[in-house]
Amino acid sequence: MDKLQAARWQDNHLQLLDQRLLPQQHTYIDLETATDTARAITDMVVRGAPAIGVTAAYGVVLAARSAYAEAGDNWREQIQAEMKILAAARPTAINLHWALVRLEGLFADLSGNPEAKLLEEAKAIHAEDIAANQTMGNLGAAFFADNTRVLTHCNAGALATGGYGTALGVIRSGHAQAKITQVYADETRPWLQGARLTAWELLYDNIPVTLLADSAAATLMQQGKIDWIVVGSDRIAANGDVANKIGTYSLAVLAKHHGVKFMVVAPLSTVDYDTPEGAQIPIETRPESEVLGVFEQHIAAEGASAWNPVFDVTPAELVDVIVTEKGVVENPTREKMAALLD
Amino acid sequence: MDKLQAARWQDNHLQLLDQRLLPQQHTYIDLETATDTARAITDMVVRGAPAIGVTAAYGVVLAARSAYAEAGDNWREQIQAEMKILAAARPTAINLHWALVRLEGLFADLSGNPEAKLLEEAKAIHAEDIAANQTMGNLGAAFFADNTRVLTHCNAGALATGGYGTALGVIRSGHAQAKITQVYADETRPWLQGARLTAWELLYDNIPVTLLADSAAATLMQQGKIDWIVVGSDRIAANGDVANKIGTYSLAVLAKHHGVKFMVVAPLSTVDYDTPEGAQIPIETRPESEVLGVFEQHIAAEGASAWNPVFDVTPAELVDVIVTEKGVVENPTREKMAALLD
Repeated sequence: MDKLQAARWQDNHLQLLDQRLLPQQHTYIDLETATDTARAITDMVVRGAPAIGVTAAYGVVLAARSAYAEAGDNWREQIQAEMKILAAARPTAINLHWALVRLEGLFADLSGNPEAKLLEEAKAIHAEDIAANQTMGNLGAAFFADNTRVLTHCNAGALATGGYGTALGVIRSGHAQAKITQVYADETRPWLQGARLTAWELLYDNIPVTLLADSAAATLMQQGKIDWIVVGSDRIAANGDVANKIGTYSLAVLAKHHGVKFMVVAPLSTVDYDTPEGAQIPIETRPESEVLGVFEQHIAAEGASAWNPVFDVTPAELVDVIVTEKGVVENPTREKMAALLD
Repeated sequence: MDKLQAARWQDNHLQLLDQRLLPQQHTYIDLETATDTARAITDMVVRGAPAIGVTAAYGVVLAARSAYAEAGDNWREQIQAEMKILAAARPTAINLHWALVRLEGLFADLSGNPEAKLLEEAKAIHAEDIAANQTMGNLGAAFFADNTRVLTHCNAGALATGGYGTALGVIRSGHAQAKITQVYADETRPWLQGARLTAWELLYDNIPVTLLADSAAATLMQQGKIDWIVVGSDRIAANGDVANKIGTYSLAVLAKHHGVKFMVVAPLSTVDYDTPEGAQIPIETRPESEVLGVFEQHIAAEGASAWNPVFDVTPAELVDVIVTEKGVVENPTREKMAALLD
C-alpha cells in the first residue's frame, strides 16, 4: 500500500503525490513551507477531505519550523499568518479546519522548538486516519449481503485519506470478504477522479472496476445492477446532511427512486457539529475552465460560460447509513449524529 | 442559419459538416457513395436522429446513382446491398429506418434513371424536417411562462436535424418570444455534444448558455433554478417511452423528484409505432474508449474497463409532454400517441 500514500513525511519534509498527473505519472512533490502546502491543496495536488486534513497537519509542522527559525519563542505569533493561509486553502472539507484546531490546541503547552511535538501529533493524526478507515471498512462491509454490486463516485480511497480509504476502504473490505461481485465507478467530471484515481487504486489492489459516464448511473440502477452506492464526504452537518463531490446528491435521489441503498463513509473528523444543516456548508465553486475543457484541453464553444460547483449537499433523509470509526448511524438524525460523541 | 446545416446536397453530392471537429473546426466532408455515408453516420460525422434520417435519404440517392450506373434498369436489385449498409449504420435512431422506407416506397413507380426523383424526395424529407422543427418550436414554447429557465441535454439542434432543431428549436422559439431568461446545457459525456455543439449553436444565434457537468443538473433543480427540461429523442415507442442520449432518464427521474417539467421534442418520424414499449428499443453501446478518455486523449487508469451505452429509455410516466409537428401529447399514453396519426 506504500505507493498509494497521498501525503508522507520523508527526509524531514512533506511529500505529496501529485494527483493531477495520475494515473499517467506517479510523482511526489517536495514541500518545505506551509504556504506552498496550502497552494498544493488549493491546486488539487492533494484532494479528498481526510487527505487534506493530514496534509494540513504536516503543513503546520512546516509553519512552526519557519516561525521558530524566524521568531524563536515568539513562534506562536509568527505562525498565525501561515495558519490562516492553510485554513483558507479550500473551503468545504472540514477536516482541514479540524486538523489545524487539533494542532493549535497543543501550542500553549509547548516549550522550546515546537517542531518535534507537532510532528508527532501530525503523524498521530495520519496513523489514526488509517486506523479509522480500516475500522470503517469493516463496519461498512458488514452491511453487504453476498454478491453485492456497488457504485462509487469520485475518489474516497487511499489517495483521498491517510491511507486505505473511506468509501474505497469499505469496498476493499467487502472485496476481501468476497461479498462484492462488481464495482462500478462514475468517471466524475469535471476532474475525472473516478477514471484517473479510483480506477487506478482499485486495479492496484487487483479489484476489477468498470467506469461509466456519470449520467449513466441512473440506467445501471434502472436495470437493477446496483445494490449499494458508497461515497465519502467532505463535511457532514450536525443533522446528517452530507456535502460531497458534485454528483453525489444526484445519485442519492436516483438511489431513493430505485430502492438502491446509499452509504456515506467518513471519519468523525468530517462531522461538523458547529454546522446545524447542510444549507450552511460553504460550497466551493472552481474555475469555469474545468468544465469548459478537460485539463489543459479547451473543448467547449468559445464564449460559453460554465457553472462549476464542486460539491453538493445530500439531505440526511436520502442517506441510509453513515459509517464512522465510532459506529454507524442508520437513517441519520441530529440526535443520532450527536450520540456518536458519547 | 445556413452555416449550421448538418447535411446538404451541393455540387451533385452529399456534404456533411464533420461534427467530430466542432467547435474548433468547421469542415464539410464530401460523400460520393452510400457506403461512405453509412460509415460517416457510424463514425458520428453526423449525429442526431432527424439529421441521420436526412443524411440516409441523401445516401439512398448516392446508392441509386451507383446502382443505375452499374446495373441500369436492374438498379433495384443492385441497390439492396447499400440499402442494408445504410440501415445498419446506427441502431437506435428510428428516423434512419423511416427515411429508407419512405424512399424505398418510391422504387416501384420509377422508370429510367431514378436519381432525380429520389433526390427530389430526399430534399422534401429535408425541407419537411425543417418545417416540422419550426412548428414544434412554437408548439413547445407555448408551454413556457414568462421568465422560464430551461435545461437541455446533448444536442437536439440544427446540427441534429435538417435545421432549426427539435429541443433547441423550442428553445430558439421561446427565446425569440422573450420567455426564456436562462439556458443551461449539460456538457453530455462522453461525446460532449452539449459543450461542443449545443453551446456553439446557441451562441451562434446569440442565445447565452451556461454549461455544467452532467452530474450538477440535480443541484440546479435542488436550488429551484430550472423550470423545464427540454430534450430530443432518437426513438419514441408506441406507448410514449422515449429513447434519447444517455443521461436523459437520469434527468427525468430528477425532474419528477423536484417538480420540474419534462418535455420531449421530436418529429413524428421519430415515433416507432412498431415498437410497443421502450424495453424493445435497441440501445447502442459504443466503444469503451469513449469513456476511458476524451476523444484521442486516454485518461483512465490502464486496465480499467468501461460501460458505454449511448442512449437510455425514459418511461412515458416521467414525461410531461411530447411535442411533435402533428400536435402535443401531455402525459403520454399508447392511446394518445396513436391519436397523433389521425
